[in-house]
Formats: sequence, structure tokens, C-alpha cells
Amino acid sequence: MTSHRFDPNFTDNVVNAMGENVNPRFRQLMASLIRHVHDFARENELTVDEWMAGVQLMNWAGQMSDAKRNEGQLVCDVIGLESLVDEITFKLADEATDAPTATAILGPFFRADTPFRSNGESIVKTAPKEKDGRGELAYMTGQVVDFVTKKPLVGAVVEVWQASTNGLYEQQDPDQEEFNLRGKFKTDENGKYSFYCLRPTPYPVPDDGPAGKLLKMMDRHPFRPAHIHIIATHNGYKPLTTQIFDRKDPYLTNDSVFAVKDSLVVDFVERKGDPQAGLELNYDVRLVPDGLKSNGA
Amino acid sequence: MTSHRFDPNFTDNVVNAMGENVNPRFRQLMASLIRHVHDFARENELTVDEWMAGVQLMNWAGQMSDAKRNEGQLVCDVIGLESLVDEITFKLADEATDAPTATAILGPFFRADTPFRSNGESIVKTAPKEKDGRGELAYMTGQVVDFVTKKPLVGAVVEVWQASTNGLYEQQDPDQEEFNLRGKFKTDENGKYSFYCLRPTPYPVPDDGPAGKLLKMMDRHPFRPAHIHIIATHNGYKPLTTQIFDRKDPYLTNDSVFAVKDSLVVDFVERKGDPQAGLELNYDVRLVPDGLKSNGA
Repeated sequence: MTSHRFDPNFTDNVVNAMGENVNPRFRQLMASLIRHVHDFARENELTVDEWMAGVQLMNWAGQMSDAKRNEGQLVCDVIGLESLVDEITFKLADEATDAPTATAILGPFFRADTPFRSNGESIVKTAPKEKDGRGELAYMTGQVVDFVTKKPLVGAVVEVWQASTNGLYEQQDPDQEEFNLRGKFKTDENGKYSFYCLRPTPYPVPDDGPAGKLLKMMDRHPFRPAHIHIIATHNGYKPLTTQIFDRKDPYLTNDSVFAVKDSLVVDFVERKGDPQAGLELNYDVRLVPDGLKSNGA
Repeated sequence: MTSHRFDPNFTDNVVNAMGENVNPRFRQLMASLIRHVHDFARENELTVDEWMAGVQLMNWAGQMSDAKRNEGQLVCDVIGLESLVDEITFKLADEATDAPTATAILGPFFRADTPFRSNGESIVKTAPKEKDGRGELAYMTGQVVDFVTKKPLVGAVVEVWQASTNGLYEQQDPDQEEFNLRGKFKTDENGKYSFYCLRPTPYPVPDDGPAGKLLKMMDRHPFRPAHIHIIATHNGYKPLTTQIFDRKDPYLTNDSVFAVKDSLVVDFVERKGDPQAGLELNYDVRLVPDGLKSNGA
């Protein structure tokens, strides 16, 4: 097993240094982490200087982090880790053919205190600046159904949030009204929700810290494709956290945090005869009943 | 190759997102790191909550770090990573039978401005507190030789530093004179150095941060076995950074940072007829000429 020329017992010694009084899951994770980190170092013959550059980068991430910003999370995001643990945690299929709706990462801009609004209401409370020329209004609607029976779910809650055309969420931007481009909606007697929103626009993740430095060193851009965040919940069903992406977005195939899944890509189509919006989006949500183990098969 | 039930293309997509303008070594390291991190997540089916606990721990390490303390380094140390990259970097043998002296980590208490002292001088400038009852004085001496020819090296510099009996280095302890228990010595016409020092005593690494939390969760103690730090240099030879360990130390087989190598374990023996010290330690150093590639075989 050991084809390298370093101490063949070193890693086992480190793993076996753990005592008896260790949580079994923690022991498994630490043992595996230690083995992978050591293998990484040996396979690449990592030098002291390279290792120390990594230490300094991770320390810098911690030093930039506070209540409003989690740079350690962002460093993980740009190497795909948050999207991967999201996929793992929810163990749901990528293809939506006959599967529940796929999940996606929550992201850092969720607010727990978003207000309820009426179906048909607009979440656009502050008009995007005209000079952007990107403020296209859209009518979004859909049905929330039981993944197994396909029956509509009445009174399910659909919560949405999106950035404005300047790439900023309302809490990042003093020019936006509080809770602009956010809302919670309850499905009606047919399981339907509806509201007006903006066609989403792409924006960069913050790139003034170690995550940005890594992106530059990897010769990658910091942009996320345009998306709308959705959380759907209903009593007796597993909550769903997801994002939907505009098929026409130029960053769809190279999201800086790798959150795009094929089943989450949607099409905005022309909407006629509505003075409020020239675009329309239909998006149905399938919720999995509690206790049902779905593997997306 | 992919025996898991997650997106089989995900990791390749993340690796291949790197652009053309990437330093080749950085590309190799990032590709390998991404693969190991993703494999770690998949093999253990890492959840979002577990991942976020790790992110918060690493952010905490950065927040505790400053000019005097590198907690990110210490987190690496307690999982053996610094010792491993030290071994890799210097690619030297563990067994000293006919090899150059093995290396060990520099540690955080080195001072670049340590003064020269005369051979035979004591580095004990502040007497350890009597109540400790651990202040045993020792005479340390040895020869610095060429690894290949075995000839003595005249004018080689041997720099040493050690903690006092309270577990603190002089810069951590206002009660110790500056440069207490430190010194640089030049070898004489026979390649010999000599000085008086303390028999070293074990001490804990700082355990009030994330490294300490990890140690507790792994059911491990924070102690390092008693040791003396040594750097030996001579023009035309590769510099050597090492630590030597007292064979009688109770933490010899379970160093909290895994820096002990068999060839670095030394024996303090009784010294007779010297009112200055009751113990003696002989320690010779073999330096490798520049340009010689030694694999310790």
C-alpha cells in the first residue's frame, strides 16, 4: 500500500493517538481527514514553504470572517465543497425526470425574518436603476406537489430571494428598501403560488480575500450565474432549499461555486398581455414526505 | 473508479475549471487537494452541518492568530502535518546509523537574533525556580562533522534553545532574562562545541483554541516531550534544523505534534567531578555538503 519513501508508520501513529473517549463519528472523520491530508502531502511531496503558504491563507480567511461574512465558507465554495456536501446531505438525484426537486446551497444572504406576501404581489419594492438596462420583470408561478402522490399541497410556504441588477442583495445595499426582492408565499387551494420578480442577473462573489486570491491563482472568474433562491416547506414534508438558474446566463456552465444542476435550469418565456411583466416563469416544486427515503432513483 | 452514488463528473468539473494561466505546481497542488477533499466528503458522506463545524473551527484558528501566535499552524501540528512536510522537505532518513542527522520542525519559538556565546559557557542565565524541583543542570558537548568524509568542521555554528522548567521560553515569560536558555556556539579546532544547559522538561502546547479543542475531542493530551532545539550551519553545507529528545521523557512515544524520531532520542548520563552539572550529554552532528543528494540510504 505504501509506495512512497517516507516513514510508513507515521500516519497510523497519528490516527491511533486518539484515545478511547472519542465520539465514533468524530473518530471516523478525523481518521479519514488525517489520512487524506497526509496522502495529499506525500503524493505531492509538499514542502514546508508550500504548507505554510496554505496555513497563512486559511488564517487570513478566519481574520476576514465576522457576523456578516464567512470567508472560510467562501474558500470551500470556490473548490466546490459546499455544493458537494449539499448533494451528499440531501442524497437526491440530479435529474428531475421523476425525482423530487434537487437541492442547492443556502448561501450567505438568506434572512430568517422575511415577511409573507400575497400571491400575485411583486417582490420588486425598489426599482432597479434604469441605466443598468437589466431590470426585466417576470411573473413567476408554479405548483407545490407531493413527490409520491403528485397531489397539490395547499398552504405550503414558498420563500424566495434574489439579488438586484447591481449584484447586491438588499442587506448589502443601502439604496434598496428592506426586504426588497424577498418574500414568503402560501400556496392556494390548488397548491399554486405566484409573484412578480426580476429576471435574475449574474454577480461576482466577494473577491477581495483569500477566496478571490485562489480564484485568480486558478485563473477563474468570480461570477455566479443568475439565480433565484427558493425554500419550500410544508408540514409533514422535508424542507427543500434550492436555487433556480436562467438557461440563457453566460456563467451557467462555469459557476464560481459549482451550484448549478441541470434540473435547476429554467426558461423564462415571453408573457403577453400583462403590463406588469414581459416574461414568465413556470416552476413546480416536488416535496418528499417525511419518513420517505428517496435516493432519486 | 467511482463507486459512490454522487455526480461522477463533479470533481473533474471543479478541477477543470482552472484556466490556462496557472502556475504548473499550483495547478498540481490544487487539483490534488480538490480530489482529496471531495473524496473525504464522499467517503464519509459529510453533512452540511459537519462541514460547517469544520469551517467555523478554521475561522476561529485565523481569528486567534497574530504576530505572536499561529493557531492555524498548531492545528496542522496536532494532526502531524508539520512533522510530515518537514520529513518530506528534507527527505532524510529516520535511522541515523550511517545517515546525516535527521531533521525536525523549527517550532514557533526560534529567535533570529540569538547572541554568540563562548564554548563552555552556560545558557542558564535565570535560575529555574527551586520549587519546581526539575532544574537539573547538564553539560552538553559534541562534534560537528562532514557527513561524507567524517572530518570535523571548524567554525561551524551550533545554535540551541530550550524552554525553562515552567514550560515557557524566555520570550513567553517576563521572569526570564532575555535570551535565557539560548545561545550560538562556534566549533573549535577539533569541530567541538560545549555549553551548560538544563535537562529539558515537557510542556503543553497552547490548548485554549481550536487545536486544544481538537485535542480534547480526540481524547489526547497537549504535551510535548522534553527537547532541545538545534540549528547547525557551516559554509558549504546544508543547514540542519532539529530537536533532540530525552529518552526518559514520559511523552516520548506520544508527542502531541509527532516530531519525535528514533534517531533524535538522546541519553543524559551522570557527570562526575563537575560542580556545575550532574548530567552530561554527548551529541554529534553530521552535516551534508551542498550539492550532495542524500536519501539517507
